[in-house]
Amino acid sequence: MPDKHLHADGARVLADLNTLRAIGAYKTGVHKPTFSEPHMRSLEWLAERLPEAGLAATVDGIGNVLGTSAKSGPKLLAGSHLESQNYAGWLDGPLGVVYALEAARVLNCDPTVSGAVEVASWSDEEGHFGSFLGSQSYVGAVTEADIDAATDRNSTSNRTMRDAMSSAGLAGRARVTAERGRHIGYLEAHIEQGDSLESSGLKIGVVTSIVGIWQYLITFVGEQNHAGTTRMDIRKDAGLALAKFCVAIDECFPKHCGPRTVWTTGRITLDPGAPSIIPGRAELLFQIRDDHPAVIERLESELRSMAGDVTAQGRVAVAVERIRSGVPAMMDAGFQAAIEAASKAFAGGKSVRMPSAAGHDAQVLSTIMPAGMMFVPSIGGISHHWTENTADADIVTGAEVFVDACRRLLASASEQG
Amino acid sequence: MPDKHLHADGARVLADLNTLRAIGAYKTGVHKPTFSEPHMRSLEWLAERLPEAGLAATVDGIGNVLGTSAKSGPKLLAGSHLESQNYAGWLDGPLGVVYALEAARVLNCDPTVSGAVEVASWSDEEGHFGSFLGSQSYVGAVTEADIDAATDRNSTSNRTMRDAMSSAGLAGRARVTAERGRHIGYLEAHIEQGDSLESSGLKIGVVTSIVGIWQYLITFVGEQNHAGTTRMDIRKDAGLALAKFCVAIDECFPKHCGPRTVWTTGRITLDPGAPSIIPGRAELLFQIRDDHPAVIERLESELRSMAGDVTAQGRVAVAVERIRSGVPAMMDAGFQAAIEAASKAFAGGKSVRMPSAAGHDAQVLSTIMPAGMMFVPSIGGISHHWTENTADADIVTGAEVFVDACRRLLASASEQG
Repeated sequence: MPDKHLHADGARVLADLNTLRAIGAYKTGVHKPTFSEPHMRSLEWLAERLPEAGLAATVDGIGNVLGTSAKSGPKLLAGSHLESQNYAGWLDGPLGVVYALEAARVLNCDPTVSGAVEVASWSDEEGHFGSFLGSQSYVGAVTEADIDAATDRNSTSNRTMRDAMSSAGLAGRARVTAERGRHIGYLEAHIEQGDSLESSGLKIGVVTSIVGIWQYLITFVGEQNHAGTTRMDIRKDAGLALAKFCVAIDECFPKHCGPRTVWTTGRITLDPGAPSIIPGRAELLFQIRDDHPAVIERLESELRSMAGDVTAQGRVAVAVERIRSGVPAMMDAGFQAAIEAASKAFAGGKSVRMPSAAGHDAQVLSTIMPAGMMFVPSIGGISHHWTENTADADIVTGAEVFVDACRRLLASASEQG
Repeated sequence: MPDKHLHADGARVLADLNTLRAIGAYKTGVHKPTFSEPHMRSLEWLAERLPEAGLAATVDGIGNVLGTSAKSGPKLLAGSHLESQNYAGWLDGPLGVVYALEAARVLNCDPTVSGAVEVASWSDEEGHFGSFLGSQSYVGAVTEADIDAATDRNSTSNRTMRDAMSSAGLAGRARVTAERGRHIGYLEAHIEQGDSLESSGLKIGVVTSIVGIWQYLITFVGEQNHAGTTRMDIRKDAGLALAKFCVAIDECFPKHCGPRTVWTTGRITLDPGAPSIIPGRAELLFQIRDDHPAVIERLESELRSMAGDVTAQGRVAVAVERIRSGVPAMMDAGFQAAIEAASKAFAGGKSVRMPSAAGHDAQVLSTIMPAGMMFVPSIGGISHHWTENTADADIVTGAEVFVDACRRLLASASEQG
């Protein structure tokens, strides 16, 4: 079956990925924060490639690149993102964009294919300024006020998003939102960012759902005092209360979590943070990920009960504030089946169904159309670090599976249409 | 006895303290960081007052104010500091300076007194740029290289001390060091900063020693990774290891400490400090205070052994680095006796001998001359906060005791000389 059709050109895919790696290179990875010069140069590079795939290119006002086809028949949207975390890996984002470009190049000019693959690069998937602002803008969930309020969260400069967009030359452009009903769905490929595929000798992850992310700001209020003259037994040390709380979470959560729940304390701040002052206030930025809201509900209730217990002791008051509520996104069954069939054809069936523990633009697109995701293996499971990598052979296999999955999805839509 | 002599003018002392409070006022306290405009204005105010006490004023190159007397006979050095912690109390520092000024005003013009009180305001006692840099400079323990290396530790700007000194107009001035043998000793008054005096109904603390401060940077190195895709059981979370370490200290230290030992975690930093990244590195700034080096030795050995245990478990490596070694300072027995005698005369004997758990310039001066310190009560023991306060009546009583203690010390030196 595969031999009868044009399929992915592995050498072309690797060449494109290496071209993108050279833009904003950092060691063996890249440093391309959202709206930085190398990010914008990568978007231009993509916009220049799209006509080769029969697509008209638009870079919109928030930095999304969209390639649209005038071809008749079903349209499948595919893509990922081109900016990176700071000093991070070369494939996190570009892999999915180049696969989408490759699928468009192979299928859009193939006379046996009815319809076309349209290509997207979503702005700021990595969350330098917000939460999936590019794809959220495309589905119509971002207001101008949201953009007005956004600042660079990964720097100490507090640079506003408006300022960054203006420096990037996006100020005069219009934002583009989805034409409802245009697409049969959205397909995205990504590196796994974990070690499940590698450690099982598998080549393709068929994503079943994308976990929701719940975030909490946990605040401890005690009493600031002198670190010399205040006796140990009368202290109301907010920092010590925070440390005890972290340890209590570590003891409590395993009894109540699901099989794949993860939780992380990402940031701790003691106020005022001076060596000779007992902290009167402390903050803990806490995150939970799971694809079952019922699990989160249970864990959040444990958090609140623990906070109540500490507060009741009368020394330090603990407040738990939920600052982000996640919604797990279910991937479309037809898309899962198409990826699995393509894996049988091009990856010897070495695939597995799995949830994604990381967030992706596919979860945003899934709010307005069917969506699917496929993973390729990550060497050592390393992610968000410049040493992130995937074997060239696995990148090529992934491209072949991706292009074939797109072909199957278009064919199936044509038959039904 | 007291009635035969001139003694402290309580109204004048309160008026002076309120004048200093108005310079750089913040709520009921002050905000006068070292070398700030209100700090420099306070130094000028003092320099203008010194001639009233028969003293020639010098503001030296590091911001020390020195009032020197041409009178014959023994010289007693007395003082404290005029800068404040950020947004802190009005008496922490100024009380001791105004008491010294008052003692000089009363005693230097009294024909029955042989010798004089000389007045000092030491720069940066609060450690914005270093550790007692003003008094350390006076005793000859600060090099130009130390000043070159110093930056503002209480701000994120990393402003250099040279830059701050230059803005304060100190750049062209010479630093003044002590003339060895000139003084019979150094006397300093300060608010207690704790609640021992208040809770016992006492008025004067006769300081026996000033505790040493030992400081440690404890570093945790694990492995930075993705907070979604990295399973709980394979994580090497440096932040969690840090929290557990804080709790372990809290359990271990009470078994090995002395009766007055205090320890504090003042600052915690998780690296990179982002909500979706497992911290690969974490730092804890830790301090211990005691007046017995043997106690510190025991506690430091516990710290190192706990760090070794965690490292041996193989997930997170813990390193304990001592970054500051304290030396407890013993106060002179003759000075203690003089303060106690003055308390009997002016405070109904409501005094107690006690160590100081806070550091003071007296510990620096004690390295080159006999030194003494006296405390007045702090309301609620509050310190390093703008609500810090002492009852007016206690301030006045303290001034009377201080002036009388100075009179006794000069008289005793005259007799011996």
